[in-house]
Amino acid sequence: MTPLRSPYPMRLSPADVTALIEEHFPQVHDGTGRLVIETLTDGQAFVRMHADLAMVRPGGTVSGPAMFKLADFAVYVAILGHLGGAGLQAVTTSMTMNFLRRPAPADMLARARLIKVGRRLAVADVELYAEGRADMVAHTTGTYALPPAELVGGI
Amino acid sequence: MTPLRSPYPMRLSPADVTALIEEHFPQVHDGTGRLVIETLTDGQAFVRMHADLAMVRPGGTVSGPAMFKLADFAVYVAILGHLGGAGLQAVTTSMTMNFLRRPAPADMLARARLIKVGRRLAVADVELYAEGRADMVAHTTGTYALPPAELVGGI
Amino acid sequence: MTPLRSPYPMRLSPADVTALIEEHFPQVHDGTGRLVIETLTDGQAFVRMHADLAMVRPGGTVSGPAMFKLADFAVYVAILGHLGGAGLQAVTTSMTMNFLRRPAPADMLARARLIKVGRRLAVADVELYAEGRADMVAHTTGTYALPPAELVGGI
Amino acid sequence: MTPLRSPYPMRLSPADVTALIEEHFPQVHDGTGRLVIETLTDGQAFVRMHADLAMVRPGGTVSGPAMFKLADFAVYVAILGHLGGAGLQAVTTSMTMNFLRRPAPADMLARARLIKVGRRLAVADVELYAEGRADMVAHTTGTYALPPAELVGGI
Repeated sequence: MTPLRSPYPMRLSPADVTALIEEHFPQVHDGTGRLVIETLTDGQAFVRMHADLAMVRPGGTVSGPAMFKLADFAVYVAILGHLGGAGLQAVTTSMTMNFLRRPAPADMLARARLIKVGRRLAVADVELYAEGRADMVAHTTGTYALPPAELVGGI
Repeated sequence: MTPLRSPYPMRLSPADVTALIEEHFPQVHDGTGRLVIETLTDGQAFVRMHADLAMVRPGGTVSGPAMFKLADFAVYVAILGHLGGAGLQAVTTSMTMNFLRRPAPADMLARARLIKVGRRLAVADVELYAEGRADMVAHTTGTYALPPAELVGGI
Repeated sequence: MTPLRSPYPMRLSPADVTALIEEHFPQVHDGTGRLVIETLTDGQAFVRMHADLAMVRPGGTVSGPAMFKLADFAVYVAILGHLGGAGLQAVTTSMTMNFLRRPAPADMLARARLIKVGRRLAVADVELYAEGRADMVAHTTGTYALPPAELVGGI
Repeated sequence: MTPLRSPYPMRLSPADVTALIEEHFPQVHDGTGRLVIETLTDGQAFVRMHADLAMVRPGGTVSGPAMFKLADFAVYVAILGHLGGAGLQAVTTSMTMNFLRRPAPADMLARARLIKVGRRLAVADVELYAEGRADMVAHTTGTYALPPAELVGGI
C-alpha cells in the first residue's frame, strides 16, 4: 500500500545539508548534544543527537524540549535535502508530539519522513528512538510553511 | 532501526474482531460505506471503508468526519485484535489529523499501527489512502484510554 | 493579556453566513442533527448541533465523528463570517481533538475562536459543550488553508 | 457558556509552587531565561520566561524548543498549584503546538488553563504571548499522566 518509492527524493547529500546548516544555523547545536545527519534517503532523514548532560531531566530522562528540537531539526534536514537551499526559509507552523516512553539518557535518533510537500506546506512524521533500545520513544507530526515557489526553483 | 517484530502481536483474527464489533457495535457502518477488516498483522490493522454517497463532500471529495471515523475505527480494530474483547472498553482520548490531499470519492483504506500499548494508554498512527492512488491522503495519531488491567487479563 | 478586541471582526451576520452555507453546502446537516449558527461576535462563532439519534454511540454518548463535524463546521462559520464568501474555499488542513468527557446525547454547542488569520492559513480553537452541562466536553484546534489573497478582497 | 468558576481551584500559592520546583527541579531555568510564576488563579497559571540570548533563533525570533519548554512548564505549574506536591509526578504525554507569529526576542508569557483534571489524565491549553505585543504568538494543548489517586490525597 505504501508507495514503493517516495515522491520526495533527496537532491542534496548529508554533507551538503550539513554545510548549509553550519553556514546559516551554526548555533543549532547549543544547549543539547551535537546534531549529526546520519543518512538521507528518498523522503527520509535520519539524524542523531549526541547525549549531553544539558538534555537530562530529573529522574534521569531526556527532556521534552530536547526531543522537540531533535524532531524539528530532523524534518528541517529532510526539507533541505529535498528542496535544496530554498528550504532554509521553511518555518515550523505546528508540531504534535506523543511521548511514549521515558528513555535513560543516551544518544537520541530521529527518522523524519516527508509525507507531503505541497506548494505551500510540507508535512512530516518523525519517530524518535534512544540508542540501544528498540521501542519508539516519541512520535511527532509536524507541518512547515514553505517559501514561495519561485524561490524553490525546479521542484 | 524499526524493530523487526512488533511488540503488539494480534491475538484475534479479522473474523473474531468482526464478530465482536457486530455484536457490540453494529451501527458503526451507518452513515458511511461499510467498514471491513482486510488484515491484522503484528501491531497493525488494515481496514477498508467502502465508497458511499453519504461520505462525499461538495467538490466531490471525501468528508473529514468520514476520514475521522475510518481512522478511529482502524485503531479500535488494532486494539481489539491485540487485547481481545477487553479492548471493547477502550475510549478515544485524542486524535490529530493532517489532511494531505483531497481524494475523489473511492473506497478508503486505513493502516493503523500500534506504537504503544501501556497499562493505561494506547497510541497509534494511521495512514489513510484512497483506492487506486499511491499518495497518502491523511495522517492521524490517536490516543486511547484502556480499561483497567484486571479486565485485560493475560496481557 | 488577551486583547480586548479581536483583530478578526465579523463582516457577515449569522443570516448571511447561513444563506451562503445553504446555497453551497446544503448537505452539511445530513447524518447529524441540524446545525444552527447562534451568534457571530468579534473573532468568534457560536454554533448548535441539534441532538439526533444518528450521532449517538453505544453507551449512549455522542460520537467522535459528530463532534469532529461540529468543530470543523464552527470554524468554517467563523472564517466565512470574517472573510465573507471568499472563505467558502477554505480547506481543513489539520485538526487536533481532545475528548474530555462523554456527554449524554443532547444538543451540542461549539464556540470557535479565530486565533490567527494569515495570508495563507487560519488557526482556530474550539470548545465543545453539551446543553445543560457546564464542563467542556471536547477541545479542538484546527488549521485551514485559505484561498489566494486576490480572492479574499479587502481583507 | 464558560463556567463562571473553574472546577480546578488552586490549593497552593505561587510561592509554594516555586518552592516545590526549586527543591525538586532547580535546573528548569538552565538554557533559557528564568521562569517566574506571576499568578495562580482558579484553574489557571500565568508564567513568565525572561528573555535570554540562548532562546534566540536565526532571524532574531524565539526558538520553538524554548516555547515548548515555557508551555510545558506553565501547565506543570497549574497542575502543582491544583494538586499540590503529588503533582510533581505528572508526566507530559502529548503536546500540540501551533506557531502563529514569530516574535522578536522579548520576555515570553504563558497562560495555562486546566480544562480537565481526571483520575488519570490532565488536559490543558496554553496561550503564549510576547511582552509588549497583543497578538497570541503560539497556542498549545497538552495532556499529562497523573500519579495514582492514592498519592494525590484529598482531591
